[in-house]
Amino acid sequence: MPPEGDSPRVMILMEMSQFLLSLALILLAAKVGGRTAERFHQPAVVGELIGGMLIGTHVLGLVRETEPLHLLAEIGAIFLLFEVGLETDLDEFLQVGKSAFLVAIIGVIVPFFGGYLAAHALGMEGLLPIFIGATLTATSVGITARVLSDMGKLRTRESRIILGAAVIDDVLGLLILSIVSGLSSDGSGFSMAAIVKTSLLALAFLLGSVILGNWLAQPLLRAIGPMQSRGMLHISAFIFCLLLACLARIIGLAPIIGAFAAGLVLAKTEESAHIREKIEASGDITIPIFFVMMGVSLDPSLLNPFDPASHAVMLLEIALILVAVAGKLASGLGVLEKRVSRLAVGVGMIPRGEVGLIFASTGLARGIIDRADYAVTLVVVVVTTLITPPLLKALFRRVRG
Amino acid sequence: MPPEGDSPRVMILMEMSQFLLSLALILLAAKVGGRTAERFHQPAVVGELIGGMLIGTHVLGLVRETEPLHLLAEIGAIFLLFEVGLETDLDEFLQVGKSAFLVAIIGVIVPFFGGYLAAHALGMEGLLPIFIGATLTATSVGITARVLSDMGKLRTRESRIILGAAVIDDVLGLLILSIVSGLSSDGSGFSMAAIVKTSLLALAFLLGSVILGNWLAQPLLRAIGPMQSRGMLHISAFIFCLLLACLARIIGLAPIIGAFAAGLVLAKTEESAHIREKIEASGDITIPIFFVMMGVSLDPSLLNPFDPASHAVMLLEIALILVAVAGKLASGLGVLEKRVSRLAVGVGMIPRGEVGLIFASTGLARGIIDRADYAVTLVVVVVTTLITPPLLKALFRRVRG
Repeated sequence: MPPEGDSPRVMILMEMSQFLLSLALILLAAKVGGRTAERFHQPAVVGELIGGMLIGTHVLGLVRETEPLHLLAEIGAIFLLFEVGLETDLDEFLQVGKSAFLVAIIGVIVPFFGGYLAAHALGMEGLLPIFIGATLTATSVGITARVLSDMGKLRTRESRIILGAAVIDDVLGLLILSIVSGLSSDGSGFSMAAIVKTSLLALAFLLGSVILGNWLAQPLLRAIGPMQSRGMLHISAFIFCLLLACLARIIGLAPIIGAFAAGLVLAKTEESAHIREKIEASGDITIPIFFVMMGVSLDPSLLNPFDPASHAVMLLEIALILVAVAGKLASGLGVLEKRVSRLAVGVGMIPRGEVGLIFASTGLARGIIDRADYAVTLVVVVVTTLITPPLLKALFRRVRG
Repeated sequence: MPPEGDSPRVMILMEMSQFLLSLALILLAAKVGGRTAERFHQPAVVGELIGGMLIGTHVLGLVRETEPLHLLAEIGAIFLLFEVGLETDLDEFLQVGKSAFLVAIIGVIVPFFGGYLAAHALGMEGLLPIFIGATLTATSVGITARVLSDMGKLRTRESRIILGAAVIDDVLGLLILSIVSGLSSDGSGFSMAAIVKTSLLALAFLLGSVILGNWLAQPLLRAIGPMQSRGMLHISAFIFCLLLACLARIIGLAPIIGAFAAGLVLAKTEESAHIREKIEASGDITIPIFFVMMGVSLDPSLLNPFDPASHAVMLLEIALILVAVAGKLASGLGVLEKRVSRLAVGVGMIPRGEVGLIFASTGLARGIIDRADYAVTLVVVVVTTLITPPLLKALFRRVRG
């Protein structure tokens, strides 16, 4: 190893105390915030988001958004969806497939056209209203999954429909991203062949991972079972989860979709209870990191109605928040089953996140969206993220487990 | 949040699949390597090191040494020493304090002068032999702690003496580093006041964390106990561990010393069994990352006796390895207790690691050590790391638990 190869090690030692302190602060913010929220009968995740915001870049500035912390946060999201998958019965999940599909489709179409029309009505032209519409389409399932998991409500039909719709939503988001990126490249338009390829790959991944995994998971675990090494079983399960997350990412889907698929597959094995128990202990530490880091990047001043900078765009903000909420509430109408709360399903689909921001970033990078519009997108993300957990908690209290 | 603030998020999405794949490969190398080593009746950690070497920078090149992976590896080391601390009885630990102190002192003095004399005899002059001697002084306790933990032998007196000596060794290493760094700055020499300050800080940290922690841990845990939030107890314990690790690092000690101190303190609380069980599940995933990443940076070609590049320095390499091994074996003579294997204690002190490399890097940066000498230090680290686990396993099989 040449001495240059050693520079990361030396750098690490310099950055180490900063990293360890950030991690301690993040976990502290998670616990204090979560506990405080629960005292006010709010979901813990709201406290984690606010705790993150307080220690984060825009308020106290104690924790910066560094790459290692972001990657650790993503590991947290992967643990969350892996756990959720492990608690989901595949057969029951597929039973609500049609409703999930309809919910996802309505939840993409209504916000898209609503956003497009609102932007158009406010005088925007060209590709801009299309981009604005696209940023409103994607559901970020993390918040909902977390609240339902904490409430022990993952096994309700409402939850299964939301999870299924979120998976389909991610595939649709991928398609919209290819279309929108194609639109914005210099007049070349988008290639239908590329979009068909993207869809087929995504479908092949979802079906393939579940069908093949269903086939192979039990024999593989049986082969691993007799190995004596400590932690062999749940580490093997986690490796499987990482590989599917990575594959999902390569195809263009969110890594958490792969983690969810991995959980679904392993849920059917005999060892699922043991795996879940061990995975939960690691999830306890990493999952709050995801939500606190989400909070760290939030800028509360965006929400300040007295800030003159917000006035100029406030009409657009209000319009888009209304569209974002109403569009996903409408998606609940896609539920075919009786005695399922369409309102609860619709609320579960409200949070926007990463994918919407990726659309906005793409538009920004290509000069279609300006900074003010980008900030509007952020406001939509922040508001939909913060209002959902209390609503979900109130609605799901009445849903039978 | 300005759009620039978004760049880490976009970068993350680009790097995400690479990171997830690296993580999956690291855990796979750990499990396959560890299992293979165990089949040959070797400690799992040897297989993890070799597995890491194979997927690492110098062989297959599948996993690169990136900052996030290094930080994750350090978290693994922190989990390891936290677990070891949780399994250590403070009173029993302090009972062997005198022996630990003598072992540490002998284990620093003998390798230092041995290395100095060997380098001098081979024609080195000026500060160089002093630096060479200094690189041989520091014990890297990770390997030994892991082997003893896997064997369930942490509660033997031999183990307690090794752990205690490793803690003292880290303090001594800190002092040597200040002296050696002082020597190498432009003639200014070293400041006795700075060294006294460093020692007092280190001692204050060790005593303070144990005494104060002893006092506060139980009341604090009792205050946390009634909180209902999932995972509250072990996360609080882990936050405490991170804070002490960070504090240790700020003072100049290794973060793992802080983690060990945190474990020691919490070991006395009523909840220690529960904390340990939960922490072990996370340790199962993170600890192997530490050892695999240690392997990732190893260059097996350094050990190739047929490589002409090694010939020039082979005499020095052999001499220093002999000194490194003999010097720490001699440290076992510091054991005062009867019916304690001095050989087992000495072998447990053999592995060199980070601290030795930091000395060498410092010397390299200041132009005292050249690249060939630096490579020699690496060889000493590699050899002492690889020979220790099998020796420990053979020796501790006979030590009563």
